[in-house]
Amino acid sequence: MIIRLTIFALFLTLFSMPAHSDDAEEFKQKHIDNVRMIIASAMKDSSAWESLAYMCDTYGPRFSGTKNLENALAWMKRSMEEDGLDNVRAEDVMIPVWVRGNEYCTMLEPSVAKLEMTGLGRSIGTPKEGITAEVFVVTGFDDLDANADKVKGKIVVYDIPYISYGQAVQYRVHGADPAAEYGAVASLVRSSSPIGMNNPHSGSMRYKNPDVKIPHAAITAEDAAMLGRMQKRGQTPVIKLYMEADTLPDALSANIVGEYKTDNPNDTIIVVGGHSDSWDLGTGAHDDASGCLATWKAVKLIKDLGIKLPRTLRAVMFVNEENGVRGGKAYAEAHKDEPHAMMLEMDGGAFPPSRIMVGNKNDSVLAMLQIFNPLLHEIDDSLNVVPGWGGVDIGPMSRQNNIPCLGLGTNGEGKYFWYHHGPSDTVDKIDPKVFNQCIAAIAVTIYLYANL
Amino acid sequence: MIIRLTIFALFLTLFSMPAHSDDAEEFKQKHIDNVRMIIASAMKDSSAWESLAYMCDTYGPRFSGTKNLENALAWMKRSMEEDGLDNVRAEDVMIPVWVRGNEYCTMLEPSVAKLEMTGLGRSIGTPKEGITAEVFVVTGFDDLDANADKVKGKIVVYDIPYISYGQAVQYRVHGADPAAEYGAVASLVRSSSPIGMNNPHSGSMRYKNPDVKIPHAAITAEDAAMLGRMQKRGQTPVIKLYMEADTLPDALSANIVGEYKTDNPNDTIIVVGGHSDSWDLGTGAHDDASGCLATWKAVKLIKDLGIKLPRTLRAVMFVNEENGVRGGKAYAEAHKDEPHAMMLEMDGGAFPPSRIMVGNKNDSVLAMLQIFNPLLHEIDDSLNVVPGWGGVDIGPMSRQNNIPCLGLGTNGEGKYFWYHHGPSDTVDKIDPKVFNQCIAAIAVTIYLYANL
Repeated sequence: MIIRLTIFALFLTLFSMPAHSDDAEEFKQKHIDNVRMIIASAMKDSSAWESLAYMCDTYGPRFSGTKNLENALAWMKRSMEEDGLDNVRAEDVMIPVWVRGNEYCTMLEPSVAKLEMTGLGRSIGTPKEGITAEVFVVTGFDDLDANADKVKGKIVVYDIPYISYGQAVQYRVHGADPAAEYGAVASLVRSSSPIGMNNPHSGSMRYKNPDVKIPHAAITAEDAAMLGRMQKRGQTPVIKLYMEADTLPDALSANIVGEYKTDNPNDTIIVVGGHSDSWDLGTGAHDDASGCLATWKAVKLIKDLGIKLPRTLRAVMFVNEENGVRGGKAYAEAHKDEPHAMMLEMDGGAFPPSRIMVGNKNDSVLAMLQIFNPLLHEIDDSLNVVPGWGGVDIGPMSRQNNIPCLGLGTNGEGKYFWYHHGPSDTVDKIDPKVFNQCIAAIAVTIYLYANL
Repeated sequence: MIIRLTIFALFLTLFSMPAHSDDAEEFKQKHIDNVRMIIASAMKDSSAWESLAYMCDTYGPRFSGTKNLENALAWMKRSMEEDGLDNVRAEDVMIPVWVRGNEYCTMLEPSVAKLEMTGLGRSIGTPKEGITAEVFVVTGFDDLDANADKVKGKIVVYDIPYISYGQAVQYRVHGADPAAEYGAVASLVRSSSPIGMNNPHSGSMRYKNPDVKIPHAAITAEDAAMLGRMQKRGQTPVIKLYMEADTLPDALSANIVGEYKTDNPNDTIIVVGGHSDSWDLGTGAHDDASGCLATWKAVKLIKDLGIKLPRTLRAVMFVNEENGVRGGKAYAEAHKDEPHAMMLEMDGGAFPPSRIMVGNKNDSVLAMLQIFNPLLHEIDDSLNVVPGWGGVDIGPMSRQNNIPCLGLGTNGEGKYFWYHHGPSDTVDKIDPKVFNQCIAAIAVTIYLYANL
C-alpha cells in the first residue's frame, strides 16, 4: 500500500513538473491573443441575448409535438443560415407526442379551492368524469409503505421536503407505481423546487408496471404542505382531479444543425449544443433555449472572427430532451460513422459560468484539459476544468463512440430550480452580460479543444 | 438660531439626565419579571401559528363580500370565545362588494399565449365580448404623456420597473385615468412586486374621472416585460382582455371584537388589531391573518397569565381594510365616545419584529415610550420604539380622537412584497417561532403601555 502511494506521489510530482508547466505556458502564449479576441467579441453587445429573447417571446413554450416547437425550429434554421453557418440543415427525428389537454385539480373538502397543478409527462389522463377521492398524504416512500393499508381508493399526495433536485425528483418520476400498487386512484407530488411561489413544475414520469397505471401530476409546494397540515390536524381533504392527458402516435421533428467547416483533410468534429424543446409552462429560457443560443452563437463568433481551426465545429440543437431524448439518440444513430473529437453541452441554466465539466469519469481527458485553466481565467479566475458530466443529449453518442464529453457548469446559487420546468422560466431571468460570459466560456473551450 | 439650538441642547441634556435614567431603571425593574413571563409564554409552543394555519387553510382567501370571509369571521368569534376573552362580539359593518367574476387575458399576436392576470379592485368589467386591441407599452406616466397621441383605441400596458412598493403602486391605483383620458380602451399594469415568479398581485384602484372608466388589471412582471420587449423590437402585440368585474350593493359584515377587561373604574381602552379580510388570490396569511391572530393571541396571553392591568385590552379584527377601510371607519363612529389610551396595529407581515413604530408624528409619545426599549431588548437587542406609522385600520379612530397609535414593524428583508396580494401569501411563508416573537413584541408593548 505504501509502495503504491509512493508511486502515485511520484506520478503527481512528474505531472506537475516544470516540463508540463512549460507546455502549459507555451499553450497559453500561443492562444492568449485569440482567446482574448473571442472573449471581447462575446462580450461586445447583447445581440445573442436579443435572439434568445426573440425566440422565447415569439414562439413561446417549445414542447415536443407542438406547433410552437416546429415554428421555433424553422426560425432556428433560418437564423443559423442568416448567421452564415455552413451546412445548415434539419435532420429528421421521430418524437413522442404526449398531450396535456385540459386539466384541473380542485379541493372540495374541507373547503373549495383551486389547486394549481401540472400533469406529468407520460401520465395517463383521468376518466371523463375526473377522479374524486379522499387524500392521503405521505412524506416519502417509506411513509407510503408504512401506510400501505390506508391508501386504497385514495389520491396519494407526496408532500416531500425539498432537499435536492435529485432527491425530490424521485417522487415525480417514480411516485405513481407504488401508490398504484397499494390501490391508490391517482397520485400528486409536491413540485420539485426549493421554493413555492405557487408555481407548479412539470417534468416526466415513468410507469414500471403497465397493469396499474394511475394519473400522476405535480401540485405546488404551498398546496402539498397545506394538505399535509390538514391531515395532521384530522381534516380529510377531498380532491377532484381532471386530466385529459394522452399519448398520440410519434411525429416527425428535427435536430437543427449548423457548422463551421474546417479545410483540414483529417477533419474531426467538435459538437456543441443544447436542446431545442422545453416544457410547456414557461418559455424554457434557461432550460434550454440558453444552451441552444449560447452554443450556436459561440460557433458563429469564432467563424465571424475568421479564426481557422483544424477541426469542424458543429452546433446541434437536439430535439425532445425533456420527454424522450429522441434528438440525442437520433444523432448517435445518424452520425455513428463520423469521427468526433469532443461533444459539449450547455443545459444547466444561463448563470455565471463556474466550471467546464468533464463527463464519463474520463480522467485522462480531465488531466489533459488542465492546460485550459490559465486561459479560462481570462473569463473568470474561478473558471476551471473539473470532473462532472456532459449532458443528456450528447450522452447517447458520447457513450456509443467513446467520445470525450464536456458540460458547461454555471452557478445559479440554487435559483435554477426556482424556474426549472415551471411558468417562471422566462428570459427576464437571464442577464445579457452573464449570457455573454456563457458564450465566451463555450467559445474559448471549443477553440482550445480544436487546437489540442 | 444659536439660542434656540442651545435651548434644544439643554432640553436633550435634561431628557437624558440621571433622573430620567433612574425612572427608566425603576420602570424596568418593576416590570422585568412580567415581561419575561410574557415572552416565555409567547414562545412556549406553536399553538398560535396552528390557529393561524387552521384559519388560512380552512376558510381560504377572505375577500370582502365572500362567504369565505363570513365563515372565517364566525370562526374568529367562536375561537375568541373559546379563548376566554371578555365581551366577544361582532359589530356590524356595511362593506362594499366588488366581484371579480371570470376573467382572462390572452395574447393573440405575435403568438397565442395565456397571460396570468388579476382584475384590480373597483375596476369595471369589459363588454361581454371582451376587449381585443393592440397594445401600447409605456414605462411611466411621463412616457404615457409623451405618447398621448398613440394610445387611442389601444390597451395601455404600464411596464414599470419596481423601485419600491410606494412607487410601483401608483400605477396600480391611478393608472386607468390618464390612459382613459387619452382614449385607451383598457389598461394593464405590471404587478407591484420586486420579483416575478409569474404571480399576479391584486389590490385596489380608483377612478378620478367617472366619465371615462376603462377596465384596469394587473399582469405578471414577466409578461409586462415581454410586451415591452416586443414593442421595442417592432412587434405589435394584440391582446384580448375579458373581465366580468362588477360592483354590487353593500353587504353586512362585522368587526370581531374581544377584550380583557380591567376592574379599574377609570378604565381607558388599548386597542390592538389587524384586518380580517384579504385579497382573493392567496389566503392572506401575512396580510393580515397574522396581524389578527398575533394581536388577539397577545391579549389572550396576558389574560391567561392573570396579570392585572389598569386598562382594558381590546382586540379588534377590522373588516374590509383592503378595498374600503369600512371596518376602521365603522369602529371610529361606533366608539367615538369611549376613552382610548392607545391603538396598535400589525399589518406589515409576520417577519422578525424590528421596531415599535409611533405614528402620526407624535414626538411626545415617542419620547415617552423610549422607556420601553430596555424591556423590548428582552425579545431582541435591536427592537426599539421609533417614529413610523400605526396602521390603516386604526387611522380613522386615532385621527378623529387624537389617540396615540403604534404599529409593529417587521423585517422581511424585502420579501413581504414577494407575497403581498398575490397567490403566494400562504401560511408556509410564516415561521412559527418568528410569529411567536411578533406576539411577544405586541404583548410586551401593550402590557407596558397599560402600566404607564
